[in-house]
Amino acid sequence: MNELPTVLEAARCIADGSLTSEALVRACLDRIGEREPQVQAWQHLDMDAALNMARHLDRCGSGPLKGIPIGVKDIIDTADMPTGYGSPLYETFRPPRDAACVALARHAGALILGKTVTTEFAYFQPGKTRNPHNPDRTPGGSSSGSAAAVASAMVPLAFGTQTAGSIIRPASFCACVGYKPTFGFIDRTGVRPFADSLDTVGVFATTVQDAAFLTSVIAGRPNLRITNEEFRPRIGLTRTYAWEDAEPATALALDEAAARLRAAGLEIREVELPERWRGLLEAQKTIMAFEAARSHVPEMLTASDHLSAKLRELLDAGALIAPEDYDAAKALLAEARAGCSDVLDELDVLLTPSAPGEAPEGLGATGDPVFNRIWTALGVPCISIPGLTGPTGMPVGVQVVGRWGDDRRALAAAAAIGQVPLSA
Amino acid sequence: MNELPTVLEAARCIADGSLTSEALVRACLDRIGEREPQVQAWQHLDMDAALNMARHLDRCGSGPLKGIPIGVKDIIDTADMPTGYGSPLYETFRPPRDAACVALARHAGALILGKTVTTEFAYFQPGKTRNPHNPDRTPGGSSSGSAAAVASAMVPLAFGTQTAGSIIRPASFCACVGYKPTFGFIDRTGVRPFADSLDTVGVFATTVQDAAFLTSVIAGRPNLRITNEEFRPRIGLTRTYAWEDAEPATALALDEAAARLRAAGLEIREVELPERWRGLLEAQKTIMAFEAARSHVPEMLTASDHLSAKLRELLDAGALIAPEDYDAAKALLAEARAGCSDVLDELDVLLTPSAPGEAPEGLGATGDPVFNRIWTALGVPCISIPGLTGPTGMPVGVQVVGRWGDDRRALAAAAAIGQVPLSA
Repeated sequence: MNELPTVLEAARCIADGSLTSEALVRACLDRIGEREPQVQAWQHLDMDAALNMARHLDRCGSGPLKGIPIGVKDIIDTADMPTGYGSPLYETFRPPRDAACVALARHAGALILGKTVTTEFAYFQPGKTRNPHNPDRTPGGSSSGSAAAVASAMVPLAFGTQTAGSIIRPASFCACVGYKPTFGFIDRTGVRPFADSLDTVGVFATTVQDAAFLTSVIAGRPNLRITNEEFRPRIGLTRTYAWEDAEPATALALDEAAARLRAAGLEIREVELPERWRGLLEAQKTIMAFEAARSHVPEMLTASDHLSAKLRELLDAGALIAPEDYDAAKALLAEARAGCSDVLDELDVLLTPSAPGEAPEGLGATGDPVFNRIWTALGVPCISIPGLTGPTGMPVGVQVVGRWGDDRRALAAAAAIGQVPLSA
Repeated sequence: MNELPTVLEAARCIADGSLTSEALVRACLDRIGEREPQVQAWQHLDMDAALNMARHLDRCGSGPLKGIPIGVKDIIDTADMPTGYGSPLYETFRPPRDAACVALARHAGALILGKTVTTEFAYFQPGKTRNPHNPDRTPGGSSSGSAAAVASAMVPLAFGTQTAGSIIRPASFCACVGYKPTFGFIDRTGVRPFADSLDTVGVFATTVQDAAFLTSVIAGRPNLRITNEEFRPRIGLTRTYAWEDAEPATALALDEAAARLRAAGLEIREVELPERWRGLLEAQKTIMAFEAARSHVPEMLTASDHLSAKLRELLDAGALIAPEDYDAAKALLAEARAGCSDVLDELDVLLTPSAPGEAPEGLGATGDPVFNRIWTALGVPCISIPGLTGPTGMPVGVQVVGRWGDDRRALAAAAAIGQVPLSA
């Protein structure tokens, strides 16, 4: 589906003068003109302003991302574009400043192309976006527009956020690379909070290398920039405690993928998660609901009738959670985080599904983050790469999970895994 | 210095009809009329609006904080009052919504009296506030106005925030109770971020019971509400690795306090902090600078000439910190947090100075958080209670430090310690 150059390629060509930002942005806008009527990935997009900015950057831009267009999930503040958080309550809101990640991208020369559709406050009430592979299916959420825009080659990079499964799931459903870095790697200032101890900023790209490149710049971590180095990761295949939620075709596809990785000479062994981790899924839900109920009190008090029923249900439930249950969930999480490296003993990464299966039919729901919640809660790096195919031919991603803080290894492993054809 | 009823008393009287919010707010405004010209604790205060709101709450308010006035540090968003973050960059800013803690207070019936002075973005560049005990001395920072307003009985309660020592230090310098709860107990949505993994919302009050009461309501943790129960805490006296920074008079005063607590029949023993903790002070500084350099990129890029030299210096230094050094600081912190309960083995709380000594002379600096940084970094509950007196007669607080999440015990211990006269 991709017709844009990779970001690494585009950055090189812009640097040596063989490509202009204007030409690259025109290619994006052409593609948007073609696909947007069906996909509906953009919440705000000003084509003239984007071209003017591209010409400006061609004249006097600088930095590693010079002239590279980026989409920004509309849960993230932008000073020069409306920021609506997917809610009618913020339809007219203009933040006073860019979010830190947006400012860092601009500082590195990037061009903010527009705002991509988010679900309401990055929870489950869908926006208008459709799956680029089938307009009758969800693109996933909550970073719906970012995933759909990158997957349909409207823009080569986009920012997203994940509190449960909001990067990895839509990346899987739309077939692009989604990367949720270690918790805290990308500063959250100017990102609308949902659940403080879980919210994580991440990125979408068409290759692992591009996702790594953007993050290396934004996080100020040059070692994340991976190239096509030779790396043969030792992989743990884990079915997690959510395995019964995997669709049969996904389960089979993952086994097939493991066989192919083994045939390609990579070391793969099955990994059982610790018995104590069985509680992590519920712990993540408890923490998310408890914290969301507090962070959304301003809206609940003044404008609850403008919140979706889905969100209100969560906030009401979260307000009833006993602090002792929340504290117990946090304690389990702290224990699991401390023991997390043991699970990866002598392995580089874990391999696990990104989602239970293909993007579900219909646009009323965004799918189930059951394969994402525990990793978000653990704060470890996760990368979804396209690779599997569901029974109706829709894409399904595989998820590479790394050690806390060792994003470089996780990204390098994901790049290596991505080179092996995982399905027929 | 206090002429207001305690909050517990006022809430009881408002509930039984023997006191009106209007009368209480009038008492505050009278006191403000008297002291504010010298103390300068308020950034925004609309007396008529406050009285109108008090009358409104007398008619139709409800909740545990019905009619109780609260000051809000101007780093915290309010929808009906300007929110300036202590920076000329935000002089005209009006947030779209209240911060979560403000909304929760209003939901509980409280009256937001006004915004109190903060240092610039809650860092070290002072605002206009003076120490209520001596106008030629700093009130401390960054919650300067909240501490000074509560200590001079202009308002019975106020919100503050602490990233290094911004609640405990000004409470100590101004002689009121300052309480920094366990990290995450009070939701931070709508609080301007400085350093994401350290920023903590807390409160000022004139009694430990009042601070506990407000927090129990805001955090939705009824068990934090302590009454005058009989509790004889087992206390560990710790001089920390910052002891050489304590002024000689403070060191002597703490010994005297320990002797008096022992004489009052409380168990006190000296506690040595683990050798590994020696690095925590520098680790806190590293984390704070690294994260602040990222969260303030939007202002650095677009308006750095409107930032103070003090702040720019930190942000420049933070931008140069290698990610590996930041990661090492975070790893040390994680290890120390995990081992924190061992330090308190068979003890209820630690007792340590709140600050190196009296509020320093002059208004150009807000004092040194050297006795606060490691506890903020550990995320544990800290309470400063007035009790010691410096060589010139200025107040010096003592700090009670509890276990992560066990704020109830820390508060009960602080209340018990506060009943013993700690100095001659």
